Amino acid sequence: MTHTAIPARFWRQLFYPESIALIGASATPGSWGHGIMRHLVNTTAKVYPINPRAKEIMGRPVYPDLLDIKEPIELAVIAVSALQVPETLRQCIQKGIKAAVVIAGGFAEAGDDGKALEQEILDIARAGGIHFIGPNSMGHMNTAIKLSTLAWTGEMPPGQVALISQSGNVGHRIMHTGLKAGFGFSKGISTGNEASLRLEDYLEYLAGDDETKVITAYIEGLREARRFYELAKTITPRKPVVVVKSGGTGQAASAAHSHTGALAGSDAVYSAAFKQAGVIRAADDDELCDVVAALLAQPLPRGKRVGILTVGGGLGVMAAESVERAGLEVAALEAATIATLDKHLPPRWSHANPVDMAGVPATEIGKVYPAVQAVLADKNIDAVLFQAPLGLSPRHLKRMFGEAGAAAFIEDENRQLADVRRWVNAAGKPLLLVTPSVEFASEPEAAASLHCHGIPIYSSPRRAAVVLQHLAGYRDYLDAAGK
Amino acid sequence: MTHTAIPARFWRQLFYPESIALIGASATPGSWGHGIMRHLVNTTAKVYPINPRAKEIMGRPVYPDLLDIKEPIELAVIAVSALQVPETLRQCIQKGIKAAVVIAGGFAEAGDDGKALEQEILDIARAGGIHFIGPNSMGHMNTAIKLSTLAWTGEMPPGQVALISQSGNVGHRIMHTGLKAGFGFSKGISTGNEASLRLEDYLEYLAGDDETKVITAYIEGLREARRFYELAKTITPRKPVVVVKSGGTGQAASAAHSHTGALAGSDAVYSAAFKQAGVIRAADDDELCDVVAALLAQPLPRGKRVGILTVGGGLGVMAAESVERAGLEVAALEAATIATLDKHLPPRWSHANPVDMAGVPATEIGKVYPAVQAVLADKNIDAVLFQAPLGLSPRHLKRMFGEAGAAAFIEDENRQLADVRRWVNAAGKPLLLVTPSVEFASEPEAAASLHCHGIPIYSSPRRAAVVLQHLAGYRDYLDAAGK
Repeated sequence: MTHTAIPARFWRQLFYPESIALIGASATPGSWGHGIMRHLVNTTAKVYPINPRAKEIMGRPVYPDLLDIKEPIELAVIAVSALQVPETLRQCIQKGIKAAVVIAGGFAEAGDDGKALEQEILDIARAGGIHFIGPNSMGHMNTAIKLSTLAWTGEMPPGQVALISQSGNVGHRIMHTGLKAGFGFSKGISTGNEASLRLEDYLEYLAGDDETKVITAYIEGLREARRFYELAKTITPRKPVVVVKSGGTGQAASAAHSHTGALAGSDAVYSAAFKQAGVIRAADDDELCDVVAALLAQPLPRGKRVGILTVGGGLGVMAAESVERAGLEVAALEAATIATLDKHLPPRWSHANPVDMAGVPATEIGKVYPAVQAVLADKNIDAVLFQAPLGLSPRHLKRMFGEAGAAAFIEDENRQLADVRRWVNAAGKPLLLVTPSVEFASEPEAAASLHCHGIPIYSSPRRAAVVLQHLAGYRDYLDAAGK
Repeated sequence: MTHTAIPARFWRQLFYPESIALIGASATPGSWGHGIMRHLVNTTAKVYPINPRAKEIMGRPVYPDLLDIKEPIELAVIAVSALQVPETLRQCIQKGIKAAVVIAGGFAEAGDDGKALEQEILDIARAGGIHFIGPNSMGHMNTAIKLSTLAWTGEMPPGQVALISQSGNVGHRIMHTGLKAGFGFSKGISTGNEASLRLEDYLEYLAGDDETKVITAYIEGLREARRFYELAKTITPRKPVVVVKSGGTGQAASAAHSHTGALAGSDAVYSAAFKQAGVIRAADDDELCDVVAALLAQPLPRGKRVGILTVGGGLGVMAAESVERAGLEVAALEAATIATLDKHLPPRWSHANPVDMAGVPATEIGKVYPAVQAVLADKNIDAVLFQAPLGLSPRHLKRMFGEAGAAAFIEDENRQLADVRRWVNAAGKPLLLVTPSVEFASEPEAAASLHCHGIPIYSSPRRAAVVLQHLAGYRDYLDAAGK
């Protein structure tokens, strides 16, 4: 199938509609029509619930039929069963609607009858000039106007990351994991079976979306792989594209095909294409969020030489191993750096990279900041992996220092982190924080204070090293592309 | 150096002392002597704080000198600086003490002077018949009597896992991660420089410790690799041994050497030796805890054929890929199983493995249990990876169903989980739960209800599949060894 250009007006109606009809709105908790309605009452758009058997849902008057609505409708959200979708689409056409989301499953993923039904709704939509998300979609969202048709996902705060997902459930996981990692989403799409709009269409739209700084995707199989590749090549020099490509092994590929009809294709071919287009490929959804958190907040490294700062020898050993296994280097420090560290650290410090600061306890944490500054400034170092007990939870600090002591500690840490942020910017080198223990930064408010300084937090050196590997690879790509 | 047998009496005095002297007890928060004292006031042993410049610490009378104590002392915890350790050990000998923990750093890890000092304290101890942990140790613990000399680690509940760690910080991480994964520790040792007692000594002791069901270790380098190997071979048929071996790459090996004087050795040799001795090698501390949680709670699989149950197609694809990448199989289901699933699942279910249950929402979660039972009973299946929204937090459930509804939901889930546990036992096959989203089982009380049924929870299919790979490998080892 070839690509038909989709008008800008359509995208405006899909993501910034002024009026929405929810066909299949419901008052029954646990139903799709109820889950979507819960979101729609929050949006700035005018919302029209449609249900022949209800008078009122969530305080909104209900219309028995789409055609009973006098006002114009820009977006139709279709949450009725598969067999009702053809008739609903015909009504949409009659009503002059061009943009739709088809939630129902039971189409191409459900066998031959479903395939025929999918072709039928596609034919109807094309004849009427409708483009639609799905069918078999979990919905879409635009946080800027609090629009969400994702029945099972909670309210999402705004953010700078767009997500295109060929699985609703995996998309749900990615959005929640992203929130925990400190970033929000601009737009999200569960693509479903991609009968009308395809992953490549969303990619093209998001390339030009000013609210989106990073594009992410969960991919099982591309229907227009060449188009994806050509598009990605033009996007990645300006906006990072980070993907998980699943279904690369035997039974996983079969499962992907029966899931949304996608053909998984050769994993090696995908990998090579992603690499050539500057697309960052993460191993799974956790890794995707790890990488995105760094891309949003930190500069790219100019090379592969990593400086490791740690409060414990064993942590330093594990960090060094993680860095080397990720194909990066634990570089030798400049003599000047060693001299500076001698001035600030206890005499027992390791005198080499990894910089084992010899067990600096929370009470003397101030000693680590001059060390961070020195290692960031070192000409032999391109990136810093920093392992220290920052982001101690307020609860823990109160136990240690009392109420006033904890407040002073947090104030001091915030001041120091603002310095760290300035040093990062001045050096143009990324700094990733690794928590030395799960009790650090494990509470949302502690993590938030680190996130607000743009310092991403990783639960293990292995995860942080993999992120640095991706950042260095992306930098290499941009350099080779002359960016 | 050759191995000298350590008397059983010594181990009793080290882990179950009736009286303890803390030399270097302190009233100053943030100091080692304070951190250790905080723990010791909780133990059942009689505790004697020693400090020439204090009268009372935490309500306990302080002795200026070890030799001022009239009563016999079984264990000396030495938290004074390195240069004071020789004289302290001489006093211990005079007092008739045979067991000691030397916390101070500044020995072999700190250069030539430190090396000489370490030899000096070793000579003193040997002449006086003392064995000791350390120097440069973070301490040790025995949860059965609330004994802990780990200044920086919070109070640990009792458990069945012993930990021998060549890094205090990494040990700290492992214990906290283990708690989050639902298991506790019996005994813990931060081995430090291993001047007197070595990792192999602790391993030999723990082999015979009835309170320890699984032995774990963080290893940077073995001083008696052959002895470790021979010991492990005799232990693993009865008790699993799970290790992280770090320092396997260039700069990591150097860092390990300067950390505790350990020689990291060839990574490939270690891997081969672990495999031949039935020792499970985890990639890092997270993976170690993942494996241990399953070993404690679940049977070993008889083969590599995994059944996947999931509430979402994309999750199934990712799970299948994880299973296949871990060298396991996504096996075909028996016809009888498919017939049973047809009876219980919505018609849209995938009709194959992975069993995509077609988006069962929380309100209809009851449908998944007969499916779990059928897949566990399937003769083609050796292990089950189960992805479902169990362990929803009480807070979340109250939002969905109200106070009474949430209580009923939780009661029902508990009854169903007890059934699942019975089916697991009857089938003799492991079942690992993967949370479909971070909001599930992310609150301690929700996780606890799953843990109390012996169902380990993993945050991604990748992590669960790696665990199954380890379990299957261990089972293979036991089979080959005729166990």
